[in-house]
Order: sequence, then C-alpha cells, then structure tokens
Amino acid sequence: MPTIVVDVMPKAELLDPQGKAVAGALSRTGHAAISSVRIGKRFELTVDGPVDDELRASVQQIADEILSNSVIEDVVNIDFGDAEPAADASTEA
Amino acid sequence: MPTIVVDVMPKAELLDPQGKAVAGALSRTGHAAISSVRIGKRFELTVDGPVDDELRASVQQIADEILSNSVIEDVVNIDFGDAEPAADASTEA
Repeated sequence: MPTIVVDVMPKAELLDPQGKAVAGALSRTGHAAISSVRIGKRFELTVDGPVDDELRASVQQIADEILSNSVIEDVVNIDFGDAEPAADASTEA
Repeated sequence: MPTIVVDVMPKAELLDPQGKAVAGALSRTGHAAISSVRIGKRFELTVDGPVDDELRASVQQIADEILSNSVIEDVVNIDFGDAEPAADASTEA
C-alpha cells in the first residue's frame, strides 16, 4: 500500500526550545560542528488504493488543516511516494 | 550553511497511539482513504563548514545515540543535503 510522507516543521521565526535543548546537549557532548537544531514532525500516511489527483488534493488539505497548526508550523514537504517506497528499517530479529 | 535532515520513526512493531488518534480523527472527518498514520520526528541540523566523511560519521552516531531511542525508534533516513540521497541510511548491524 502506498505511503505518503508529510513533514511539518516549526516556523523559522519561532524559537523551538526543544531543538535548542538538543543543540545544547550536542554542544556539551563535543559535537561542535552542529550549530543549530530544529525539531519537527514526520507523518507517514498509509493509503488504500491508488494515489490519484483527488487523493493528492485531499492529503494537501489534511496536511494544512489537521496535521499542522498554521499559526506555528509549516508543512515543508509532502512526498507522495512516487519515487521511493517507505523505508522499513526493522533491524532487530 | 548545510542542513542535514534526520528522520526518526517509532518501530513498526510498536503501537504509536498518537498516530492512531490522528487516524481516528481522519476517519471521523470523512478521509476514509487514509488507513493508518504513524508519527515520528524530523530533525534539521544546521552545520558549520563542509559535510565531509568525518561529519557524516559523527551525524550517524548522533542520530543513533542522541536523536533516537533505539529501544522504541528507528532512524529511517539521514539526508545530508547533497545530490545523492542516503539510500541505505538504515544500516545498523
């Protein structure tokens, strides 16, 4: 079944204290090359049936209205899975 | 400055109640085409300087040890922002 990936990030002008905390932890643990971190959300939507134009419009609307809060977040990417299938990285046997 | 994207998802065998809640909300609002939702994290790391092999190894280690909890999460993708996508970024021994 196709998997659609929606990426949501906090708006650039907002502080993102969670990202700042991680950046501080990286700095304290000697990873000085990383100058800043921002943390957003990645949604994997599994769909029944084909990814047609109607579904694309529907997912765009879902991303804008349900998965993200447009006051503080931006939908930065929607990957309809045309090129790459969903990575299933279960590594433990 | 280069931006490296690290995607972390809950392991496939875990329940992800947050994703289930969103899937239920989509179903109730008439978006029946979406059969399941899983919610993970997207980290954007801004780095000073070039993305060389040393930095790649460092980011791989950061992703595995700091950005993800390997008990419940998988690092599904690391995008170093250059032309070639990290196709086999999910290589854990």
